[in-house]
Amino acid sequence: MPYFDAASSAPLHPVARQALLASLDDGWADPARLYREGRRARMLLDAAREAAAEAVGCRPDELVFSSSGTRAVHSGIAGTLSGRRRVGRHLVASAVEHSSVLHSAAAHEAAGGSFSEVAVDRTGAVGTAAFADALREDTALACLQSANHEVGTEQPVAEIAGICAAAGVPLLVDAAQSLTWGPVPAGWSLLAASAHKWGGPAGVGLLAVRKGVRFAPQGPADERESGRAAGFENLPAIVAAAASLRAVRAESAAESVRLRALVDRIRTRVPQLVGDVEVVGDPVRRLPHLVTFSCLYVDGETVLHELDRVGFSVSSGSSCTSSTLMPSHVLKAMGVLSEGNVRVSLPMGTTEADVDRFLEVLPGVVTGVRERLGAPVAAAPSPTTAASLVVDALGRRCPIPVIELAKVIGEVPVGGTVTVLADDEAARLDIPAWCEMREHEYAGEEPADLGSAYLVRRLH
Amino acid sequence: MPYFDAASSAPLHPVARQALLASLDDGWADPARLYREGRRARMLLDAAREAAAEAVGCRPDELVFSSSGTRAVHSGIAGTLSGRRRVGRHLVASAVEHSSVLHSAAAHEAAGGSFSEVAVDRTGAVGTAAFADALREDTALACLQSANHEVGTEQPVAEIAGICAAAGVPLLVDAAQSLTWGPVPAGWSLLAASAHKWGGPAGVGLLAVRKGVRFAPQGPADERESGRAAGFENLPAIVAAAASLRAVRAESAAESVRLRALVDRIRTRVPQLVGDVEVVGDPVRRLPHLVTFSCLYVDGETVLHELDRVGFSVSSGSSCTSSTLMPSHVLKAMGVLSEGNVRVSLPMGTTEADVDRFLEVLPGVVTGVRERLGAPVAAAPSPTTAASLVVDALGRRCPIPVIELAKVIGEVPVGGTVTVLADDEAARLDIPAWCEMREHEYAGEEPADLGSAYLVRRLH
Repeated sequence: MPYFDAASSAPLHPVARQALLASLDDGWADPARLYREGRRARMLLDAAREAAAEAVGCRPDELVFSSSGTRAVHSGIAGTLSGRRRVGRHLVASAVEHSSVLHSAAAHEAAGGSFSEVAVDRTGAVGTAAFADALREDTALACLQSANHEVGTEQPVAEIAGICAAAGVPLLVDAAQSLTWGPVPAGWSLLAASAHKWGGPAGVGLLAVRKGVRFAPQGPADERESGRAAGFENLPAIVAAAASLRAVRAESAAESVRLRALVDRIRTRVPQLVGDVEVVGDPVRRLPHLVTFSCLYVDGETVLHELDRVGFSVSSGSSCTSSTLMPSHVLKAMGVLSEGNVRVSLPMGTTEADVDRFLEVLPGVVTGVRERLGAPVAAAPSPTTAASLVVDALGRRCPIPVIELAKVIGEVPVGGTVTVLADDEAARLDIPAWCEMREHEYAGEEPADLGSAYLVRRLH
Repeated sequence: MPYFDAASSAPLHPVARQALLASLDDGWADPARLYREGRRARMLLDAAREAAAEAVGCRPDELVFSSSGTRAVHSGIAGTLSGRRRVGRHLVASAVEHSSVLHSAAAHEAAGGSFSEVAVDRTGAVGTAAFADALREDTALACLQSANHEVGTEQPVAEIAGICAAAGVPLLVDAAQSLTWGPVPAGWSLLAASAHKWGGPAGVGLLAVRKGVRFAPQGPADERESGRAAGFENLPAIVAAAASLRAVRAESAAESVRLRALVDRIRTRVPQLVGDVEVVGDPVRRLPHLVTFSCLYVDGETVLHELDRVGFSVSSGSSCTSSTLMPSHVLKAMGVLSEGNVRVSLPMGTTEADVDRFLEVLPGVVTGVRERLGAPVAAAPSPTTAASLVVDALGRRCPIPVIELAKVIGEVPVGGTVTVLADDEAARLDIPAWCEMREHEYAGEEPADLGSAYLVRRLH
């Protein structure tokens, strides 16, 4: 039963399991105590810190263990914003950061700080010029992920680090998705990551803060982990996290080549096999194991459910799979289709046979959903004489507004228009994305009773 | 090798180990995902929440898992202070709370809030009248531990809960030390605890918030755990925590009787065997497994070290064992001796033979340290004609100032005075405590060059 959602959480690496088991007996005591059980715990903690620091590329005293990657990001951002408050209260981050970064930014704004979000291109990559433009005299911190968690695109970290260094602004790199595959290029000031993404256990994040970065930990004081991560150390899990990071790194060079080829196969074959598909993210500058595509005329939730039924676990950035019924902020920032969105992220050890079987079952799954939803088929519709049509999709959720649009576009003459009335948030992203895919003109959006009116002009 | 520091961290309970192992395979996926691995993780999380809620005595939807007891306390206090901000910004807590409570209070004061610390008596128990007096119109939250972590004294939680309810003030109970032994008496509004104190793994705390308590989670938004504990759930550890809580509760009734008798033996025998000892904390209303005593004329650090050498792991609230060189805030609030302080907290399963061996070796350890430090011996000193003496102990650390005082007190006539010059923080607590133990008059403290002058009048 292949699990293809390693970007959410990777199965526990065998080395992590072994290290966890071994340290359950030796690592339960308080490492701050001076008796033998405490000293043993302290030795394990020190050794784990050294191993993790070596993998990250920093000094052991620059690295602390937090309870999650999210906490590492929260602490890293809050501590730097406070430590550099005299410089100013301006924060910069890309529009496609993990929610832990963007929610930190929202909290900072709510507390009176300012925030600039840097746009990305259609591949999800941030532009170096745009990032440089966002930096100001009063910028306390800039944040950039090493690679995107939803589409796999690598960010130009080395270039942005150079720009930030020149501007005297510390750069926090969220390396949660990439640390498995190697260290982050030099130049970062803070680095955050999460062990369960690399096959370590849950409950362990790491935060590295370079010497020289002004940092003032926030929240109630706590002596543990240099005051940067409150609470009793989760020691057996920390030991397991460090051991498994070292282990996956030993395997990652070979695995990355192998998985990259498997992902390339998915990137190439899915559009051929399924049709009406947009594969998103940078095809080359990307994580080795991750690919995301969106399928017209299906809803992500049903596709996920059907794939689960036939044994594949994947995730989706479609609005229907989120609790807020909003499309993923990443797909939105990229301006790409969000309906029928499928993210495949292969854990280490994924076999070629698993991927081939996925490619075998996917077309049937998508076709089945399309049929049930009444997606338009290739047969040419009969044109009407009306130069414009209005489709009322109010109260209908993704992918219905796009399906209704596609059904009638052939009924207006070339140059004629279709107006789609819709109140589903995904329509705002998916109708323009459909136009781009189908090479029609997206002529804009206007407010309408109970929703919005999206205007599309037929071009061919 | 007996480990007698269960109050710091208890060894992993066998049930916790089993549950952890079992859920490593089934509980690594994201419980927010809809595929089978996610659903399995969600089921484990739901079951753990139900088991923990039953043990705590609340509804499952009132309880969240945090990454530590410290985080549970931080979140509980910050969330309630914010949720009830319209009532006011006044916080109440006993003077002997865990540092996570007192550091939260300090952070609240630093942010402009107000804080009242309620004094305790010589046993460490908070007075109900004093607690009631501390509540004000603008009190947003009151905090009281179920039992003290350093001296074992149980707090009058039921009475204080009644007083708080009458005043319309929510009460947060830090139950970290007592949850092993049974549920907290009804009436609390929020409850915090820590799994590694009951034999669960590190990395799991729990926070229960009763329906109806106005609560606004602080920090960046996060969807997990009802927004009250950010970060990916530490699921295998959560499962192990819940399973072991249930398991220790099944054993705790019998164990509490057994350990209570062993602790009584320590409470009775140590003063007889060692001499010049103050056993602190309430002898009856106390945790079953914990006893603390202080030995005159020795330093806690050396006693701990010597006990460790002969195989006993204990902790201490003496100033010399803290990184700040301050005596424990608990002993200070109680006004009891802090020098030569030893806390013994027996893990479940501690044998009678272990305790007897401890009682065998302790006198030799203390005597050895006393001899090395030149502690006064019973021989009567020759009185001088001087009606007053000054002892210069500036620059000398605990227990030297008290040793020097004890050496010369017999040299002044009854009614005469000894002035001790000292700059060690422990002297402020230990010189009055010595006077109380020895039945001399402590006549007060005055500022002096480079330290303080402590005045003692010989009474017999």
